Amino acid sequence: MYRLDQDSIATESGANRFDVNLSDGWGIGGVPNGGYLGYVVVSTLAKALPHPDPFTVTSHYLRPASPGPAQIEVELIRAGTTQSTGMAKLIQGGKEILRMIATFGDLGTISGPTRETGASPLPSMDRCQRSTATPPNSTFGDRVDVLFSPGSLDFLKGASDRPMEVSGFIRLNDGREPDARSLVLFADAFPPPVLHAVPRRYVPTLELTVHVRRKPAPGWLRAFFRTRYLIEGYLEEDGEIWDSEDRLVAISRQMARLAQ
Amino acid sequence: MYRLDQDSIATESGANRFDVNLSDGWGIGGVPNGGYLGYVVVSTLAKALPHPDPFTVTSHYLRPASPGPAQIEVELIRAGTTQSTGMAKLIQGGKEILRMIATFGDLGTISGPTRETGASPLPSMDRCQRSTATPPNSTFGDRVDVLFSPGSLDFLKGASDRPMEVSGFIRLNDGREPDARSLVLFADAFPPPVLHAVPRRYVPTLELTVHVRRKPAPGWLRAFFRTRYLIEGYLEEDGEIWDSEDRLVAISRQMARLAQ
Repeated sequence: MYRLDQDSIATESGANRFDVNLSDGWGIGGVPNGGYLGYVVVSTLAKALPHPDPFTVTSHYLRPASPGPAQIEVELIRAGTTQSTGMAKLIQGGKEILRMIATFGDLGTISGPTRETGASPLPSMDRCQRSTATPPNSTFGDRVDVLFSPGSLDFLKGASDRPMEVSGFIRLNDGREPDARSLVLFADAFPPPVLHAVPRRYVPTLELTVHVRRKPAPGWLRAFFRTRYLIEGYLEEDGEIWDSEDRLVAISRQMARLAQ
Repeated sequence: MYRLDQDSIATESGANRFDVNLSDGWGIGGVPNGGYLGYVVVSTLAKALPHPDPFTVTSHYLRPASPGPAQIEVELIRAGTTQSTGMAKLIQGGKEILRMIATFGDLGTISGPTRETGASPLPSMDRCQRSTATPPNSTFGDRVDVLFSPGSLDFLKGASDRPMEVSGFIRLNDGREPDARSLVLFADAFPPPVLHAVPRRYVPTLELTVHVRRKPAPGWLRAFFRTRYLIEGYLEEDGEIWDSEDRLVAISRQMARLAQ
């Protein structure tokens, strides 16, 4: 069993209640990464819904989680023919860590008009490079393999007026291929692009919404993240994720803030 | 009292429960507009939270509403120092119409670094024009005043390969000035840009997230909406709203689908 699957096992403990064990293997600074938490919760919520794929997933991050036992409560809000909607709470130590609302569907059966005007903004992989810097007390980098595009890591050298953009290639490093749900993880797996303007800050996510648009093909994902509006310490971060066949598979947007 | 305020009065009917009367004055094809519903719900949710301004608001649209009585249930999820998070349900005839989750803060007190790289994409107002076409059985256009930018209404002439963009100037037409909460309304007040590719279709919103970034100055708002990825009948619609002083005040993103 791959580590992401092992680290997201949910055991039913009652009606619409599940026990999970948050791994210490997906941490940034000792805190489980928000994308990992989102993956665990959306995978558990899927058990309560009649459709398999998260189409649009919104997570509000209320408090930092810790590695260890946690509970997830799920609610089926509406089950329709083509979509279903549900809510989930991640609870640890009696406190709510994350509240999620999501609408699911079936990416394998939808059909309709297609028109796309975007294009994958990434350079060729041979121009990309791994980071040599790891945040202290972080295990997340042991689980994912990332090749950053040129300039993406310039924030390690300090502030600059370059565009607030970070991009690169990403995959799980144990051979686990990407699937629709894992895009919730990958949407929060890169350093915040706002660090180009304000380096060495902690940038907690308040809310993250991921739209999953296609099932990704096996192989490396290409991900591009950009912040255009840092206003009074608050910012949006927009993401696009493309698969190895250069098809858009997800878009994301989060609201975050610079911690004081 | 202005119509938007009159049409969003919520009367407490119990603990965390409110009665509202959905107006027939904000309809598109006889159905209350989703932005209007979002405004009613977020204004009611505000009563349960210690902060005044919606920072990030996500609405999942479950069923069409009808004009008339409805109930709103609110839940305070977390009250923090700088932000608070809550949930709300809009219920009508015993069925849930809309589920909202939102994080609030205080736009008047936040402070921190600012860097903005976007620019208002609108032409001058004298190049914009009102629409002469109104969807049947629609009252929404009686409440808002919209000047469309050149080309925005080309979908009325049929499909084209122009970019899927719609933009223009907008205000409430009874003199009610925009405020932070009203940006939830304005984020869903324009025709869907996907109509350029697929005209004369109904495009129901599945989920709409609005990030409110500043309190708008009085006067006309400038709004720009774009769809880049129509895939198998599903699409995102990204919006930016600028105020009369050319400051970004909100960004929005919705997932919608082409109705069969």
